[in-house]
Amino acid sequence: MRETKLRRVCFLLKVRQDRLEDYRRDHETVWPEMLDALSRHGWRNYSLFLRPDGLLVGYLETPDWDAALAGMQDEEVNVRWQAAMQGYFEALGDAKADESMQPLEEVFHLV
Amino acid sequence: MRETKLRRVCFLLKVRQDRLEDYRRDHETVWPEMLDALSRHGWRNYSLFLRPDGLLVGYLETPDWDAALAGMQDEEVNVRWQAAMQGYFEALGDAKADESMQPLEEVFHLV
Repeated sequence: MRETKLRRVCFLLKVRQDRLEDYRRDHETVWPEMLDALSRHGWRNYSLFLRPDGLLVGYLETPDWDAALAGMQDEEVNVRWQAAMQGYFEALGDAKADESMQPLEEVFHLV
Repeated sequence: MRETKLRRVCFLLKVRQDRLEDYRRDHETVWPEMLDALSRHGWRNYSLFLRPDGLLVGYLETPDWDAALAGMQDEEVNVRWQAAMQGYFEALGDAKADESMQPLEEVFHLV
């Protein structure tokens, strides 16, 4: 059963308001190799939602969040993807977006 | 198939920082009649995530978001629940929380 084996993960990032259109456009055509890598590392039912001011909400379900993150770190396509995305985000400092995905606390769930 | 028939909805609310513990506690023991009403009106795989500053992220999947919201409006248990929750939220003015759930734009999805 999906409910018993997968963890639901929610994280927040901030897209620069002057790059929203670029961010949107790039996510209409995410590279197939990137999608394949995410799937192989357990990123399932993964959505990104954008507020008009650039607040970005990520939601996914995964059997193992640490493994999902760590697995992507070793993917060459992810290094290229994160480099392409880095200019879109605010206040990440030197960190790549996928190094700043701190999961929020889940306080309620209804199946 | 889940993917083809359900819409994924994400919304944001703001819990008052001095009420976070109360909000958390109440959501560990949501009334069974409230859970039943949500289910009957198509709220599925519904999670709430809380950031330490009180930003609240809601995520659910539903066959019809307008019907999911409208159906709850007619539920007596929901009127009582929203009244109990109202003091926990910031900046809702006179609106109940469930009248302020503006869905964010989904810009990416991976099955």
